[in-house]
Amino acid sequence: MTKLRVGIIGVSGYGGGEIFRLALSHPDVDLTYVTSSTYVGQPVTAALPGAAGRSELVCEQYNLTDAVSQCDFVFLAGEAGFAMKAAPELVAAGIKVVDLSADFRLKDPAEFQRWYKMTHSSPESIVDAVYGMPEINREAIRTALLVANPGCYPTSAALALLPLLVQNAIDQTSIIVDSMSGVSGAGRSKFTLDYHFSEVNESARAYGVGGAHRHTPEIEQTLSTVTDSPVTITFTPHLVPITRGILTTAYATLTDSSANPLEILRAAYAEEPFVVVLGDGQFPATKHTFGTNNCIVGATVDRRTNRVIVVSAIDNLVKGAAGQAIQNMNIMCGFDETAGLTMTAVWP
Amino acid sequence: MTKLRVGIIGVSGYGGGEIFRLALSHPDVDLTYVTSSTYVGQPVTAALPGAAGRSELVCEQYNLTDAVSQCDFVFLAGEAGFAMKAAPELVAAGIKVVDLSADFRLKDPAEFQRWYKMTHSSPESIVDAVYGMPEINREAIRTALLVANPGCYPTSAALALLPLLVQNAIDQTSIIVDSMSGVSGAGRSKFTLDYHFSEVNESARAYGVGGAHRHTPEIEQTLSTVTDSPVTITFTPHLVPITRGILTTAYATLTDSSANPLEILRAAYAEEPFVVVLGDGQFPATKHTFGTNNCIVGATVDRRTNRVIVVSAIDNLVKGAAGQAIQNMNIMCGFDETAGLTMTAVWP
Amino acid sequence: MTKLRVGIIGVSGYGGGEIFRLALSHPDVDLTYVTSSTYVGQPVTAALPGAAGRSELVCEQYNLTDAVSQCDFVFLAGEAGFAMKAAPELVAAGIKVVDLSADFRLKDPAEFQRWYKMTHSSPESIVDAVYGMPEINREAIRTALLVANPGCYPTSAALALLPLLVQNAIDQTSIIVDSMSGVSGAGRSKFTLDYHFSEVNESARAYGVGGAHRHTPEIEQTLSTVTDSPVTITFTPHLVPITRGILTTAYATLTDSSANPLEILRAAYAEEPFVVVLGDGQFPATKHTFGTNNCIVGATVDRRTNRVIVVSAIDNLVKGAAGQAIQNMNIMCGFDETAGLTMTAVWP
Amino acid sequence: MTKLRVGIIGVSGYGGGEIFRLALSHPDVDLTYVTSSTYVGQPVTAALPGAAGRSELVCEQYNLTDAVSQCDFVFLAGEAGFAMKAAPELVAAGIKVVDLSADFRLKDPAEFQRWYKMTHSSPESIVDAVYGMPEINREAIRTALLVANPGCYPTSAALALLPLLVQNAIDQTSIIVDSMSGVSGAGRSKFTLDYHFSEVNESARAYGVGGAHRHTPEIEQTLSTVTDSPVTITFTPHLVPITRGILTTAYATLTDSSANPLEILRAAYAEEPFVVVLGDGQFPATKHTFGTNNCIVGATVDRRTNRVIVVSAIDNLVKGAAGQAIQNMNIMCGFDETAGLTMTAVWP
Repeated sequence: MTKLRVGIIGVSGYGGGEIFRLALSHPDVDLTYVTSSTYVGQPVTAALPGAAGRSELVCEQYNLTDAVSQCDFVFLAGEAGFAMKAAPELVAAGIKVVDLSADFRLKDPAEFQRWYKMTHSSPESIVDAVYGMPEINREAIRTALLVANPGCYPTSAALALLPLLVQNAIDQTSIIVDSMSGVSGAGRSKFTLDYHFSEVNESARAYGVGGAHRHTPEIEQTLSTVTDSPVTITFTPHLVPITRGILTTAYATLTDSSANPLEILRAAYAEEPFVVVLGDGQFPATKHTFGTNNCIVGATVDRRTNRVIVVSAIDNLVKGAAGQAIQNMNIMCGFDETAGLTMTAVWP
Repeated sequence: MTKLRVGIIGVSGYGGGEIFRLALSHPDVDLTYVTSSTYVGQPVTAALPGAAGRSELVCEQYNLTDAVSQCDFVFLAGEAGFAMKAAPELVAAGIKVVDLSADFRLKDPAEFQRWYKMTHSSPESIVDAVYGMPEINREAIRTALLVANPGCYPTSAALALLPLLVQNAIDQTSIIVDSMSGVSGAGRSKFTLDYHFSEVNESARAYGVGGAHRHTPEIEQTLSTVTDSPVTITFTPHLVPITRGILTTAYATLTDSSANPLEILRAAYAEEPFVVVLGDGQFPATKHTFGTNNCIVGATVDRRTNRVIVVSAIDNLVKGAAGQAIQNMNIMCGFDETAGLTMTAVWP
Repeated sequence: MTKLRVGIIGVSGYGGGEIFRLALSHPDVDLTYVTSSTYVGQPVTAALPGAAGRSELVCEQYNLTDAVSQCDFVFLAGEAGFAMKAAPELVAAGIKVVDLSADFRLKDPAEFQRWYKMTHSSPESIVDAVYGMPEINREAIRTALLVANPGCYPTSAALALLPLLVQNAIDQTSIIVDSMSGVSGAGRSKFTLDYHFSEVNESARAYGVGGAHRHTPEIEQTLSTVTDSPVTITFTPHLVPITRGILTTAYATLTDSSANPLEILRAAYAEEPFVVVLGDGQFPATKHTFGTNNCIVGATVDRRTNRVIVVSAIDNLVKGAAGQAIQNMNIMCGFDETAGLTMTAVWP
Repeated sequence: MTKLRVGIIGVSGYGGGEIFRLALSHPDVDLTYVTSSTYVGQPVTAALPGAAGRSELVCEQYNLTDAVSQCDFVFLAGEAGFAMKAAPELVAAGIKVVDLSADFRLKDPAEFQRWYKMTHSSPESIVDAVYGMPEINREAIRTALLVANPGCYPTSAALALLPLLVQNAIDQTSIIVDSMSGVSGAGRSKFTLDYHFSEVNESARAYGVGGAHRHTPEIEQTLSTVTDSPVTITFTPHLVPITRGILTTAYATLTDSSANPLEILRAAYAEEPFVVVLGDGQFPATKHTFGTNNCIVGATVDRRTNRVIVVSAIDNLVKGAAGQAIQNMNIMCGFDETAGLTMTAVWP
């Protein structure tokens, strides 16, 4: 069978590099085109030293004509603002696209402008783009030409809370999302003092406190897809000294104190290939998802305060980025949804 | 001036070892007696390799007679259940005591039994013991013979929230305390698989979810000292791969949306030597407290949800244990409250 | 095509767990039998939380009859002393075996006894066992029934030095091997204070200094296979706060100052699928091998002292244990030698 | 008694910040002047968040007149090239100086130019500058006006090897120095991708292999002060994922196989306040020196190869920089040599 010819735009970033890792071992994919403005002309292994000995590809400068002639499918893993121009052109040329940036996530262009400080040049494409969270959007993804791959925090938060909102089990005004992330979430090009080893190591801190993080509107938009009125949450991200992983601890007040949130989650995810709901009293560690596309979820109720606490763990670069992107590609192209994604964690 | 003769019972644990470090450089203290059942007969530097070249003391087996004859003041840093026997005997012999275990923290012996799975053998001493949080109990500590040194999570949570409760600025039913701790909080003797390097490194996880952690009743008891009715909270501790440090992110709904929580905190702590309130938009990192007795606090309001978010950072072994114990000793003995505690963080 | 039925004895250790991870995604393998005395009767995912959602296997108690009836091939990943009994029995029953312990590595039973403090019960099997380092023993492995999988340090040291010894490029009396290892090398069951997170984190130390480490005779035996007289080296292992990875820096005096060690290494490994020799002035980081079966090698000459310095990096659990074991299985069973092992590093 | 008025030029770097930490708690020092071009006009606590609540100083722009009027003693902690201009001016104005940069370490200006790629503007001052390693230069330091503070690697290497060279116990052509350093050694301003958390964490690598590191000539110059002919060594530095600490493992061939290197080290350092020689079979961990001015040394002989292996540990920012600088100041000013430096390690 002919394999799908796949391109990665921005292969030298952490998100692009992770797509490279996953695509290289995908049974239905032939990686044909990788670009990086930093490493143009150099072997992809110069950009991605962990690929030593496994690829002869060379990083190119992105160019629409080349992309169209060499690819059937393209992953856009560039900075915010790039995809809003490139994606519509690729789609117009018949190439299917998954965009890992935020360009097509927020449905309201004004919201996009407010959070990302730039005018959206393709508001009409936002309408066509499908938000690529298979657990809630699988059918739309199947026929999509352009998929907006979800952010890492939104993935961990939405998978923790959506089934409880669907079942009206929680008071939507009571939601608090407290998350901690590994440092790779900040990307590779932002090597500021904030991510300098000596300042991050052996330290934990909060940032974007009080609703200041760009993922806040994305979480709210996603949660609101299953409620009658818009959801507003309190979201606090933290930075902890790990490279990969997001742990989200979500709090909400139960509408019915006899509800069993763990059962609701279990039922909702019974058929999902990448959401694992743990047993009573069990909670995930980020390390258990390291390198995998899994989201592992645990939950319990604090009976004294009538609050449910849901804890979810993902690898921010896999289910929180590249893995979910591959999952979306699988759905868009009619492959087995788990193709190339059945690995267990690299643990310990 | 004659120095205070000080003993440390349980010097080879992380809490005892940290008292040793601080006491050794304290201007008013003469360390005369250190005990460790694990290292009995060995130099204290065998138990505490970081003290190499700085002490000739030898670890002894604890014995009331020796303690009374060699000490004016004793720190108890043993396991739960030890101090409830030793402290009353020492106090009866005229020795002032700070206990770092949980034996005298909970005022209700039944609560103690429920959480620590043992009957309290000295309930009458609980009445006399003073909860050693100087920011709320300074005067009582001054004349105390027995001080119950607060737990690490309770210190970080109480310092974040107390002033807001005192001013009725927050709804006491809305409090959620989300904390992450370094691994030294689990102590030195519990070297189970849970704290094995390979399983903890590059991982984050929640534990004691849903009110199951022993510090829950201590936090609630402390917060309730300034409210009319008992406070019930939701508390979730997390383990992150750092050795020292607690970061607490506390959430509560404002009673008055025009309140300025940062101003309330600033006013409450203006004269406190070890609580630093940061400026607008600033939040602490645990690394900024590493090795110090500081609690650094930042706060903001999420106006969309009318919630205040307070973030506090401490070194769990200093302000969360040994440093606060020294601070209590300073107050009990009429020393300058900051004696031996004015160091800045070992940073980076 | 019928897949090979494979068993893993000791699946809950780090070595056994890593074989599990690799075997599960191996195209020619059907995992049929896993044992663990610690987790007997429990799902393998209880022992290996990173496999959540990916396997229904249950841990059994090892039993020769079960192994023989359910497996064509067995990996032994137990403690030292187990394989010397189990391997001969399995081989006698027609099962091919790769042993990851040290039981069959040292050819001299007296040496084994000296270093491992136990009498070898099957000295005759040592004779038949093939040392499983494909780069020097590929043909013998092809027909072997019992393969002794090399130790982690010996793999990194031998791959750095062997080609230079083969070419007589270095003085064999001048060899110093200085290595650092991640903590997973100490295994999962040794959760002593030595590997307690708080004592290992943010620290580096040497151990087994002066020839005291058990891998010393194995390194020397392997190097001596290509020299006329026995090689004696100085070997110093170090522990650094990473979970996976060995970095070896090997020193030796050149016999001919005009030699080009990098060229010798490049020529020796030109056809090797898992040894990558870097370019001039380039040196590996352990992170570049994380999760892969690669050994990455760099070298240079200090012209002022006429010494060559070779630096090699491996993942101690993959090329240093489970990956090399799978590679040996591939060779023993006539599979493509790289089957199941072509993954790139999980990086960053 | 009037305290010494002390200035720190370059307080916002890691070296300058560490002098700040130590000077602030020094009994004989009054910190009067701190400069930082990055944080000019801002509180020193903005540059050094670990000093929160402990200082009201403000960072100034360096200026000779201000320095001379406000200081009796100045620490220069700027980039290479700054001190060669500033130090002679300060000394001419009667200010004693310790320079933490490399400007006055190498006695040969041509060597300086070769390694640091800049012409030395004050070669005559190099002659007057005293190399500030108290263990070998105490008397010269006592009367020095300008002290060149040793580099971090050279301190760890020289303290490991000097007594053995003095006693002619080792062959000076056989020396190999293999070191690993924490990331703070790279400084604060070099926040390149090389020190980006996600690339450094969970990784170990060599750099400057084959004599390419700038500390090579400094180590050789220092060792050569006690030998008849110049010493040439092989030196390999490594980067490991810790913030602070250098562990050096030094190798040399014994001239007399009956020598007892540990006894030689013990005798040499018997009176030294900051060098701790461990017992037989004991070796240091960097964590045991964390935050202290100690160098901890262990040694053994590999009898099979007739090599001595010496392992030394320091905190690169303390004995490897700021602590040794304070020790030099103590000697230059007639203070107790240990003043302000008697702290034990912040451990664990």
